[in-house]
Amino acid sequence: MKSNDYKDLSHIMAPKSVAIIGASSNPDKVGHVILQNYIDAGYSGKIYPVNIKNEGTILGLKAYTSVLDVKKPIDVGVIAVPAMAVPQVMEECGKAGVKGLVVVSGGFLEVGNAQLQEQLVAIARKYSMPTIGPNCLGVMDPRSRIDTLFLPTYKIDRPKIGGVSFAAQSGAVGSAVLDMIGSEGFGIARFLSYGNAADVDEVDILNYLGNDKDTKVIVYYIEGVKRGKEFIEVAKRVTKIKPVVISKGGVTAAGAGAAHSHTASLAGSSQAYDAVFRQFGFTIAKDLKDLINYAKIFDTQPLATGKRIAILTNGGGIGVLATDALYNNGLELASLTKDSEDRLRKLMPATVNIRMPMDLVGDADDKRYTDALSVVGDDPNVDAILAIVLFQTPGADSRLASSLVSFAAKMKKPMVGLSVGGSYTHAHRQMMENAGMPVYESPDDAAGSLAALINYSRYRKGIA
Amino acid sequence: MKSNDYKDLSHIMAPKSVAIIGASSNPDKVGHVILQNYIDAGYSGKIYPVNIKNEGTILGLKAYTSVLDVKKPIDVGVIAVPAMAVPQVMEECGKAGVKGLVVVSGGFLEVGNAQLQEQLVAIARKYSMPTIGPNCLGVMDPRSRIDTLFLPTYKIDRPKIGGVSFAAQSGAVGSAVLDMIGSEGFGIARFLSYGNAADVDEVDILNYLGNDKDTKVIVYYIEGVKRGKEFIEVAKRVTKIKPVVISKGGVTAAGAGAAHSHTASLAGSSQAYDAVFRQFGFTIAKDLKDLINYAKIFDTQPLATGKRIAILTNGGGIGVLATDALYNNGLELASLTKDSEDRLRKLMPATVNIRMPMDLVGDADDKRYTDALSVVGDDPNVDAILAIVLFQTPGADSRLASSLVSFAAKMKKPMVGLSVGGSYTHAHRQMMENAGMPVYESPDDAAGSLAALINYSRYRKGIA
Repeated sequence: MKSNDYKDLSHIMAPKSVAIIGASSNPDKVGHVILQNYIDAGYSGKIYPVNIKNEGTILGLKAYTSVLDVKKPIDVGVIAVPAMAVPQVMEECGKAGVKGLVVVSGGFLEVGNAQLQEQLVAIARKYSMPTIGPNCLGVMDPRSRIDTLFLPTYKIDRPKIGGVSFAAQSGAVGSAVLDMIGSEGFGIARFLSYGNAADVDEVDILNYLGNDKDTKVIVYYIEGVKRGKEFIEVAKRVTKIKPVVISKGGVTAAGAGAAHSHTASLAGSSQAYDAVFRQFGFTIAKDLKDLINYAKIFDTQPLATGKRIAILTNGGGIGVLATDALYNNGLELASLTKDSEDRLRKLMPATVNIRMPMDLVGDADDKRYTDALSVVGDDPNVDAILAIVLFQTPGADSRLASSLVSFAAKMKKPMVGLSVGGSYTHAHRQMMENAGMPVYESPDDAAGSLAALINYSRYRKGIA
Repeated sequence: MKSNDYKDLSHIMAPKSVAIIGASSNPDKVGHVILQNYIDAGYSGKIYPVNIKNEGTILGLKAYTSVLDVKKPIDVGVIAVPAMAVPQVMEECGKAGVKGLVVVSGGFLEVGNAQLQEQLVAIARKYSMPTIGPNCLGVMDPRSRIDTLFLPTYKIDRPKIGGVSFAAQSGAVGSAVLDMIGSEGFGIARFLSYGNAADVDEVDILNYLGNDKDTKVIVYYIEGVKRGKEFIEVAKRVTKIKPVVISKGGVTAAGAGAAHSHTASLAGSSQAYDAVFRQFGFTIAKDLKDLINYAKIFDTQPLATGKRIAILTNGGGIGVLATDALYNNGLELASLTKDSEDRLRKLMPATVNIRMPMDLVGDADDKRYTDALSVVGDDPNVDAILAIVLFQTPGADSRLASSLVSFAAKMKKPMVGLSVGGSYTHAHRQMMENAGMPVYESPDDAAGSLAALINYSRYRKGIA
């Protein structure tokens, strides 16, 4: 199956010009917020505010009564008008040659208005205008600086530019997770909240993100899949190129009922989805936090198929817990070579227990970690490193944080951190994550993320 | 079995006077840091710095060569001298009538020095001086303002006064979790890091915290239990009075091996511990984050034996995920009474779906939540409430946060929040937690914590 059997979303995500239909001078209107977002984000293409009650200018830009009056090429129309008016403005967009649409308006199938939604789909297809929505937050892209999110800017941390693309059927989950990502160290490529998926659906989006060169990791929240067979076709291709982390709402019978009344999704059984997702190389996130946990390891770390993890720690108890967490997640402790052990015995003080989990003890500093890593990193029996740093101890400071990040950046194997604590710890965790090394807050988060990376790597290499 | 069969730790936790043995003017010495902590914390009892190389005064306080020179009553001796010198200073403490000891020094059984540890135990028992340690961080108590933690103060958030007591065999886990608690909204009663548990052990500590009137919730990290039978005896009594959240390190074979070399613990199999823990009413935390998640619901919410949870949300997708999380944790959605449904239909706009999970939709504000809660809170079919607020939406602000907290404080049923997001959300979550309502970051954390509360409540009421 070729990728051009699916809808092309590139005009929607990187448009040279945009019409905002329903734009308004009234700050309470969704169309006002969206127009303001485009201006604030520094969108460099042409912006055409459209309002049937032509206001002359809106936010300093010349306004139009209809897209038909613009008489210039329009790549994308963002529609924020009452549901009943949507077919009419879509018709006008079609006649004006608009290449794609984002309909943020609600009032369609999700409130039982099936006929209106069918009308929307018919018009979208008549004019070959791929249409995202309705009943969605729309799209955001920090590269092209488009932003249809009609939520107060000060309430959402906007992520920086990066390689993680995030698609969510639900606007609420979409904006909440986007906001979480905004307070993390990694950046995003594309954000799509696609609501009712009336025209553009999960298959089109997965295909688009799979082909998108700026997207390194796909993170997906779905409540249901309508075109199951096509979804699997696309998934088989995409998961061979890049990781797809997926969270499925409605996995219990009650949750599925809720999902149905939410986005009119047919949720299907949890077991069925899980089995299919695993078979085709998806990484399943059981909780929203795992979407973030897994996204950051995939975004920053190389693939690794081996399960032997070296643990370095400056606190014995945390080493014990991390060991438990590794085995609970199907991983194991590395056994160093005889040569590595000999070298470490010479480098380390007598208080250090060089058996895994290697306890560098409470007075470990920058130098001790670096010395230990120089041996452990080269050991052929080590597939990945979990560096635990308790920043409560005297020797753990920003110099150590910086050394670990530099070491991780140079190493060819995955390396993640684990640091449990309060504000001092949090500040150091952020420093390290901003520099590209994931640092987790709990043993299970760290081990679960390493397992996600390794299991996906094995799928890619055909190791069961 | 009577509580006075166990060691009395009250002198250690609320002493009228303390000798700090190994106190020093040298800021690099542990004894210096501890003395400085007592001064900084505003400890109001008498402090006697002791150093065999008498320095005249230390940090402005008259110093002594030996506790025998003090000639005044000493409630507790904090010992921070080299391991080999510990027996000698303990003997002197015994002769001086010191009532209890905290030995922070390492160099005992954990490095194979069994004989020295036996000597320590023999002296402690000869003089009936309950002794915490060795090889530990010691104790902290924000009420009596004692603080033996010899870690840089600026690196650890010190918790405020509250009802959660936290005991940890491991100093590293102890300080890291204490630091986490310090950045949370709840406060602590007692903190004990007891290291090798040579004299005072997990049985004594559980008994002490069980009887302690300031301790409302016990949170426990252990790697092993030496007196299994006695531990169960005490546990049976304590879990009938207050919740005990327990995290066990060394639950996998490899983790158990690591625990053995860490605190010389005999870890025992995971299944054996889990079964015993559950049977006697412990709440098991599978990950460090759960220690915090569970501590805050137990600290703030009333017991409730029913499993029917009402979900209110301003985002449909999160409602779906929370529903899944409830059922995955053995809970269920409440079904409102006919009367409640009638009342809600009158109060709510047509866009609101009053079936659980109740979607107040994206424009819900303070008033809509309060109206809905006024009905749901009274419904006899509702055992507890999960209030989801996505602070990304226009109507969700600090006024709503405040109303929810006020409602939760008045209600007789448990009520917790769930808010996913970045910095704006985080600020509101903290506001609400500081006011006594737990607000979780992910659906699974919220549902898991409600399940912990309800399962413990059922244990207390004898419901299986």
